[in-house]
Amino acid sequence: MTGADKFTNAQVVVLAGGVGGAKLTTGLAAIIPPENLTIVVNTGDDFVHCGLTICPDLDTVTYNLAQIHNVETGWGRHNESWRAISTAAELGGPDWFRLGDLDLGTHLARTHALEQGQSLTAVTRQITSHLGIQHTILPMCDQPAPTIIATDDGDLPFQTWFVRHRWQPTANHIKLPDDARANAQLINTLQKADIIILAPSNPFVSIDPILNVYPIRSLIMDVPQAVIAVSPIINGQAVKGPAAKLMADKGLPVTSAAIADYYQDLLDGFVYDQQDSNLTFANPDLATLATQTLMTDSTSRQQLAREVMQFAQQWL
Amino acid sequence: MTGADKFTNAQVVVLAGGVGGAKLTTGLAAIIPPENLTIVVNTGDDFVHCGLTICPDLDTVTYNLAQIHNVETGWGRHNESWRAISTAAELGGPDWFRLGDLDLGTHLARTHALEQGQSLTAVTRQITSHLGIQHTILPMCDQPAPTIIATDDGDLPFQTWFVRHRWQPTANHIKLPDDARANAQLINTLQKADIIILAPSNPFVSIDPILNVYPIRSLIMDVPQAVIAVSPIINGQAVKGPAAKLMADKGLPVTSAAIADYYQDLLDGFVYDQQDSNLTFANPDLATLATQTLMTDSTSRQQLAREVMQFAQQWL
Repeated sequence: MTGADKFTNAQVVVLAGGVGGAKLTTGLAAIIPPENLTIVVNTGDDFVHCGLTICPDLDTVTYNLAQIHNVETGWGRHNESWRAISTAAELGGPDWFRLGDLDLGTHLARTHALEQGQSLTAVTRQITSHLGIQHTILPMCDQPAPTIIATDDGDLPFQTWFVRHRWQPTANHIKLPDDARANAQLINTLQKADIIILAPSNPFVSIDPILNVYPIRSLIMDVPQAVIAVSPIINGQAVKGPAAKLMADKGLPVTSAAIADYYQDLLDGFVYDQQDSNLTFANPDLATLATQTLMTDSTSRQQLAREVMQFAQQWL
Repeated sequence: MTGADKFTNAQVVVLAGGVGGAKLTTGLAAIIPPENLTIVVNTGDDFVHCGLTICPDLDTVTYNLAQIHNVETGWGRHNESWRAISTAAELGGPDWFRLGDLDLGTHLARTHALEQGQSLTAVTRQITSHLGIQHTILPMCDQPAPTIIATDDGDLPFQTWFVRHRWQPTANHIKLPDDARANAQLINTLQKADIIILAPSNPFVSIDPILNVYPIRSLIMDVPQAVIAVSPIINGQAVKGPAAKLMADKGLPVTSAAIADYYQDLLDGFVYDQQDSNLTFANPDLATLATQTLMTDSTSRQQLAREVMQFAQQWL
């Protein structure tokens, strides 16, 4: 890779939510060695369901890095089967959250380890190492830090809103906990970071919950040489999920410029899609890069990762 | 069935544990209509494992009555698969308790319903009715009432001793909770009972935990016209499981006579295997019946059930 030497020793941290985060993360992991890249994942949409502790974003990132993800759905594992959840439904249980048989194995192993007193960080390390993942994946928080969606029908736990109601109820407000704290390992990682990348995940329900964990936002403001966000919006639409709807519900224009504005002075650089290259940005100091941001396969994941890292070199 | 008219209106309650209890229960359910037979099941070996509330004896009885049980193993469902538990093990989770994919469906539905605030009795009715079971299956207790096995290595939860350690550590003592109470439905059922049958289940870890639930023992002593036990011991051996080992560990002779003695004055009648017809019983008032007690198929299950009910007619 041209210019790779310039950031060979840079410490990179990517903040990621679900599918978009997992895609860029996979690209970054392909070009940055494990000792130089840490992946911090949103756990605001974790929940306990049927007794199991389920961490959808952690699992999406993990399955993508292990290359066992389901390409069609964007969530879950490939070669999945549905015997357990189908049986649960036959017995009057819920099946709106589609727990595959292989996926259940993750939830069983995780829930057991948590029952034994392990932290979510330790459990995540256990699971990822058994899958042969060499990069470090850190949950944003070891304690539950649930994102709540306030709607006209009341406060909904994130997955109830997102999956059960297919993110259709208007989010009047997104409630984040005021007592979520990062652990020492995560603080230490952020303090050593040179480059922070905000993945093309949903700013409101994937990235904000991470930034909300004390003291992540202030560490990111103060410490790294560069903070770069990649926009999840292309040509007025979210690649996947409710980002565009949440922006419209907030009265924001559904544009990458509005995403950059939303992150305000957190950012040094911003990467957005070349389809939107006519956009103008409110912040004149913001460095921008318009390129191909749609990641349809492993080649385009790595290509975007390379461009983001090359873009980042100006701050090293 | 000859003599069926004599107990057409008798209310029968069978107390059952695992496999032996499930077999006789299936036979009884084939010859006694749902309104006249209630099955009370041990829940002392229930446990929470990987977040799931698992009720092995309830499930064994349920699967047998629904005819979806695994004939080879004696536990679990037929046509079972093991994708979830194998995956859990690959990720560092436990697999000593073999949770099948179909079986997991039961645990998911049950745990979810309990999370929603339903009682175990209500959950059991939900599950059994979805499986088309018309007879009433009642857990002995709605609250957890765990059986603890005191060994030289410390107190072990029942399934840890039974499955994980294959019931090999000597049970110095079997600890039953002192605060387990039956609910109103179960008390009402026992108060109306004419015949109580103690299934050929383990007296120490299947039947005793039920009798220990207040006020089941006193109701059984006082109310019914007949209490009949079926011995789980044939020719010095337990048909399945640790009954013989527990008797030997207690210094008891491994005989049906010792089983009858153990139940003491609770019993009016006792059914044991014809192979042991030379046994003598300490209690001269105990009515006994020696017959074929091994249940190898549905015909022998029903045959034993018929003989037990015909034996019971002398008290009606």
